[in-house]
Amino acid sequence: MGNCAEGMSNYFCRQKNTNVRVSLPAVCFVWQIAMIILFGVFIRYDEESDAHWVEYKRKQNFTSDIENDFYFRYPSFQDVHVMIFVGFGFLMTFLKRYSFGGVGFNFLIASFGLQWALLMQGWFHSLDHTTGKITIGVESLINADFCCAGSLIAYGALLGKVSPVQLLVVTLFGVTLFAVEEYIILDLLHCRDAGGSMVIHAFGGYYGLAISWVLYRPNLHQSKRLNGSVYHSDMFAMIGTLFLWMFWPSFNSAITDHGDGQHRAAINTYLALASSVLTTVAISSMSQKRGKLDMVHIQNATLAGGVAMGTAAEFMITPYGSLIVGFLCGIISTFGYLFITPFLEKYLKIQDTCGVHNLHALPGMLGGFTGAIVAAAATESVYGAEGLVNVFDFEGEFSDRSAGTQGGFQAAGTCVSIAFGLVGGAIVGMILRFPIWGDPADDNCYDDEVYWEVPEDEESIPPVLEYNNHMIHKHQDISESNFSVDQS
Amino acid sequence: MGNCAEGMSNYFCRQKNTNVRVSLPAVCFVWQIAMIILFGVFIRYDEESDAHWVEYKRKQNFTSDIENDFYFRYPSFQDVHVMIFVGFGFLMTFLKRYSFGGVGFNFLIASFGLQWALLMQGWFHSLDHTTGKITIGVESLINADFCCAGSLIAYGALLGKVSPVQLLVVTLFGVTLFAVEEYIILDLLHCRDAGGSMVIHAFGGYYGLAISWVLYRPNLHQSKRLNGSVYHSDMFAMIGTLFLWMFWPSFNSAITDHGDGQHRAAINTYLALASSVLTTVAISSMSQKRGKLDMVHIQNATLAGGVAMGTAAEFMITPYGSLIVGFLCGIISTFGYLFITPFLEKYLKIQDTCGVHNLHALPGMLGGFTGAIVAAAATESVYGAEGLVNVFDFEGEFSDRSAGTQGGFQAAGTCVSIAFGLVGGAIVGMILRFPIWGDPADDNCYDDEVYWEVPEDEESIPPVLEYNNHMIHKHQDISESNFSVDQS
Amino acid sequence: MGNCAEGMSNYFCRQKNTNVRVSLPAVCFVWQIAMIILFGVFIRYDEESDAHWVEYKRKQNFTSDIENDFYFRYPSFQDVHVMIFVGFGFLMTFLKRYSFGGVGFNFLIASFGLQWALLMQGWFHSLDHTTGKITIGVESLINADFCCAGSLIAYGALLGKVSPVQLLVVTLFGVTLFAVEEYIILDLLHCRDAGGSMVIHAFGGYYGLAISWVLYRPNLHQSKRLNGSVYHSDMFAMIGTLFLWMFWPSFNSAITDHGDGQHRAAINTYLALASSVLTTVAISSMSQKRGKLDMVHIQNATLAGGVAMGTAAEFMITPYGSLIVGFLCGIISTFGYLFITPFLEKYLKIQDTCGVHNLHALPGMLGGFTGAIVAAAATESVYGAEGLVNVFDFEGEFSDRSAGTQGGFQAAGTCVSIAFGLVGGAIVGMILRFPIWGDPADDNCYDDEVYWEVPEDEESIPPVLEYNNHMIHKHQDISESNFSVDQS
Repeated sequence: MGNCAEGMSNYFCRQKNTNVRVSLPAVCFVWQIAMIILFGVFIRYDEESDAHWVEYKRKQNFTSDIENDFYFRYPSFQDVHVMIFVGFGFLMTFLKRYSFGGVGFNFLIASFGLQWALLMQGWFHSLDHTTGKITIGVESLINADFCCAGSLIAYGALLGKVSPVQLLVVTLFGVTLFAVEEYIILDLLHCRDAGGSMVIHAFGGYYGLAISWVLYRPNLHQSKRLNGSVYHSDMFAMIGTLFLWMFWPSFNSAITDHGDGQHRAAINTYLALASSVLTTVAISSMSQKRGKLDMVHIQNATLAGGVAMGTAAEFMITPYGSLIVGFLCGIISTFGYLFITPFLEKYLKIQDTCGVHNLHALPGMLGGFTGAIVAAAATESVYGAEGLVNVFDFEGEFSDRSAGTQGGFQAAGTCVSIAFGLVGGAIVGMILRFPIWGDPADDNCYDDEVYWEVPEDEESIPPVLEYNNHMIHKHQDISESNFSVDQS
Repeated sequence: MGNCAEGMSNYFCRQKNTNVRVSLPAVCFVWQIAMIILFGVFIRYDEESDAHWVEYKRKQNFTSDIENDFYFRYPSFQDVHVMIFVGFGFLMTFLKRYSFGGVGFNFLIASFGLQWALLMQGWFHSLDHTTGKITIGVESLINADFCCAGSLIAYGALLGKVSPVQLLVVTLFGVTLFAVEEYIILDLLHCRDAGGSMVIHAFGGYYGLAISWVLYRPNLHQSKRLNGSVYHSDMFAMIGTLFLWMFWPSFNSAITDHGDGQHRAAINTYLALASSVLTTVAISSMSQKRGKLDMVHIQNATLAGGVAMGTAAEFMITPYGSLIVGFLCGIISTFGYLFITPFLEKYLKIQDTCGVHNLHALPGMLGGFTGAIVAAAATESVYGAEGLVNVFDFEGEFSDRSAGTQGGFQAAGTCVSIAFGLVGGAIVGMILRFPIWGDPADDNCYDDEVYWEVPEDEESIPPVLEYNNHMIHKHQDISESNFSVDQS
Repeated sequence: MGNCAEGMSNYFCRQKNTNVRVSLPAVCFVWQIAMIILFGVFIRYDEESDAHWVEYKRKQNFTSDIENDFYFRYPSFQDVHVMIFVGFGFLMTFLKRYSFGGVGFNFLIASFGLQWALLMQGWFHSLDHTTGKITIGVESLINADFCCAGSLIAYGALLGKVSPVQLLVVTLFGVTLFAVEEYIILDLLHCRDAGGSMVIHAFGGYYGLAISWVLYRPNLHQSKRLNGSVYHSDMFAMIGTLFLWMFWPSFNSAITDHGDGQHRAAINTYLALASSVLTTVAISSMSQKRGKLDMVHIQNATLAGGVAMGTAAEFMITPYGSLIVGFLCGIISTFGYLFITPFLEKYLKIQDTCGVHNLHALPGMLGGFTGAIVAAAATESVYGAEGLVNVFDFEGEFSDRSAGTQGGFQAAGTCVSIAFGLVGGAIVGMILRFPIWGDPADDNCYDDEVYWEVPEDEESIPPVLEYNNHMIHKHQDISESNFSVDQS
């Protein structure tokens, strides 16, 4: 079944061992058992999901069960959940013969990643030092999904070139690095980054690019035949695009402040995304013969506005400010697909299958700096005295931080996230170069055959084949009957 | 790449210029920049999404952030958002080679339309005459999505026959007309139409049909080979159908009154839709040899119950009343696909690609009149004194309107929406006949090749081709080796 | 069009009559009219969806409309609704030529089932004996969807082997049996089963298996060519899998107690599902040559954790307890696909198309017993005095039931659900053997051709065919020109 056994590409075939029959089950079992043990030691329900809620509710003077955080956040959580599994998953099904791997490995690594994220984020953010326990609620689930997103973005750069075991390693380290950089940026630098332009997108994007750089494959052109879409795989990818696009307002508002915070973040993101679509279409059309649109742009660059609003969405960026951000990012991201991705591959030796540079890394970085500018420009007259304190959480040790200072810290936070992505990715890339992970050979990339039982008749849509065979046979019969062709 | 260059259809080919490389980017850029400027001048956050919310909350005596309108409407908003982009988008992917255009142009025009709708609806409904500003919140986003729906419905009639630039024009005027008719119907006539049977469906349907009538293509049969589905494109369309069907209760309840209004509208719509499915299946099966079902009916007529409940869903129509509406509309809509669509095409020269007449125009009109009847029959004993005032908003200048009078106005509103659709559509159709829009020739319709970079191997699912080529070559080899066929 | 008329399989062809042109419309019409009449007699809005809500709100001392049950449950309802129609529907599209039937008949029977469920569950659970009316609200809609799920699970075992009329019969009896067993288990035995491990999954699974056993087809191998997937049908099925997987936390929490009950059920289910994915991948990889993954396992066994948490999700099972349940069920379910399904078919004559035994019956049963154990282990120190009463509803006549006793009743409830499934399924199976239902012949199973108008060119993706024909013709031309082959 290995392609190498089937003629034609034998010459280039390096007979890499892609057998993961031992390593994949071993990693899944050992890590899942570790999760169970660590959850047993550390993780408990928080006060709003514990059966003692009635007592807690009384203590908090809540008048109704509806004030449980569940009702503020669960609808957004489910939208985010759809983005992680259907959004990211289907966005990566665009390759003609790697759709199983796109959606399937995304499923696998997110399922592991969210468990590990609950632990890592718990240790850094919500460990009760008295009891030594982490307590979780619906906001923890959202944060865990967010944390996975960083690694899923990195997967986008590696799509089709790595084994599932490598992806699990990428996720293990990705989630770990994420929790540390998030702790530095949100807690130590006291940045605001509700939708994660910095901590999710810039980090995840550069993390993936750095790994891809270390894993550079000079002979990847040998798999060129499979590095492209077909009509129906492009349609599957549009499912991913649209669910990401539609639910991005929920992504950016999922963990913002109750009330106006969630409300405003959703509006801003909605507007930025709409604006991105128009400029993406404009640039895509300008770049092609006869003004034809390119599905790659539509599938990806339309989302750039959402990425870039990850930090500023909860601020008073104003509705037209959101439109401007989307306007610019649609343009920049589409230009990225047209010019930067080929440049990165040719000159920097970075092979970026999905173009995460243009969809996540660059718009994420821009979003971080946008957030810094908007934060620096915040005034009491715009936010109200209480509003300013609420939005930027200027309380406790940060109660006398000015908006200008906050802007500086936001910019610093963006740099931290990029640095973590690049350095962390380079190190993880080195680890992934050990010849033990079962990754495919250069002429064997982008092919589900390597890690999946593809349906037997996978080489065809069977009725077509049958029909054609029928025609061919008819033809052969004719040949035979007239010329007695000898065929074995 | 233009089909005209590739033999066979040359005779009929009118060599229309479908190049949109200048016009499409120009329209996208200019209009998006106009949006930014107009948003800058007019649009601001409303009191529930502004950072001054804490003060507003205190003023309103809200006890909790959960009373922010965001929590009443955001889950419904996201459902509506999915209907607009995935629902309408995928419903239009059923054609074998126009799926990119179906979902992609839907994406483009809805993204423009919702911005323009925020402005147009704002000017008519929520302009603060003191400040000259429009304030927006989650309900505005829902209304903007609704407003787009009118133009997306019109797109259904035009699918495959127009250029993206024409679609943007359809949307610009469609949204404008929508805002005006909505103002007349909801504000001046004081009709109730929460789910938009009248203002969305009847208007959008007749708007599209009128445009299609003006753009009649006598030689459209030249594209007949592409005016149909294949197995997988029908499956993609079912994604659209189901998301529309499932979320229609949210559509009809998204902007109804808090509390019982939203609750009842969801229940009524849920029931009407279920009922439609059974009668659609019944009529579809009766109409075909051996009782076989037709995917066109299942994809469309099953939704008619939701359309027809758009006005009455918030009224006390009773659960069995909802079932009856769904029952009848499933039948009528399926009959529409069987008999009315061919009739319209043959005798009235209206080419309706998706059959929006049967799914939107007709059920929308019926829904308007259903609403009128149910409103006229309303009594205090059924609604309660307070309930009657709340449901029909009999307050202010309308405080002494009777239920009977309300019924009359509802019927009048339905007529207004149809008139706006027909007249507006005819005028817009005339505009679209100018030979500057890059629309396809008659033998070039329903083809993504015209406006999209279709994957290179688009003419095949490549492994099939490879395999077949392989077989053919093998055969040729045999021929060659045996007979030394001379081939160039 | 019947396959029997088209050569090749004539020998085996039993010329079964699959014409449903009379029976299907008749059943749809009669049953839908019956629904309307019964709804007219019995079904009314409840106090939270009736226009008298304002009065009720005042009576209940609610401070805000947000305390209407609609806002507690509607987001979960919509998630459940998606699971029923897109989740179950698309999960059953995996067969190469039965995708229309998978998603289409699912649509039909769920639409009927939910109406009948509102009546049946109403009579048993919410009939007001004073007025003789059933009142419905959003919780009724969720329960109706749940009730359908039992029959949809049964459909999974029968997929491709029955007619739509038979499926409607399966649903009629399935919903009826469901309402009775649910009444016994929840009301008489006073079990807790919010997510329905027992009442939905164990019942539905064994119901389907018993029917399939009675309908055993010894010559089903004659349809073997169609009993498998192709690349794109596997992708469609993944849409179903993922929407089921993502929304399962909503399924298990949809009708649990307001506040901590819904919150905790969602967390537990989220964790169990994540854990299932890793062990499913591990076992799937171990079982195949070179560690390749099998899509059947990924599409199904990953969901087993959600099924098995249906009872215990609302209990204080602890987060690591949830992980353990998911861990074990992922393993057991995958083993089921590898070994138990072939065993059932070979030795017990049970043909289970989708493997509902491994996804629903077995994990449902295990979930029932898990619930029993966790209930029996409940203590006041873990739940709090109030919490214990709330979670297990130890009120009224059950106010002195102990946790241990509750555990015993939970176990008994599981047995009741299995018994109802097996006995009810056997009886319904007998009814379905009457030769009047239009079911397909053994060589005609798994084929949409039988009950659907499949697109004319269904035998091909047309452009491929065209292109290949072109090549073949070119080749023929060569042959002709060189050898003057005589072709008719």
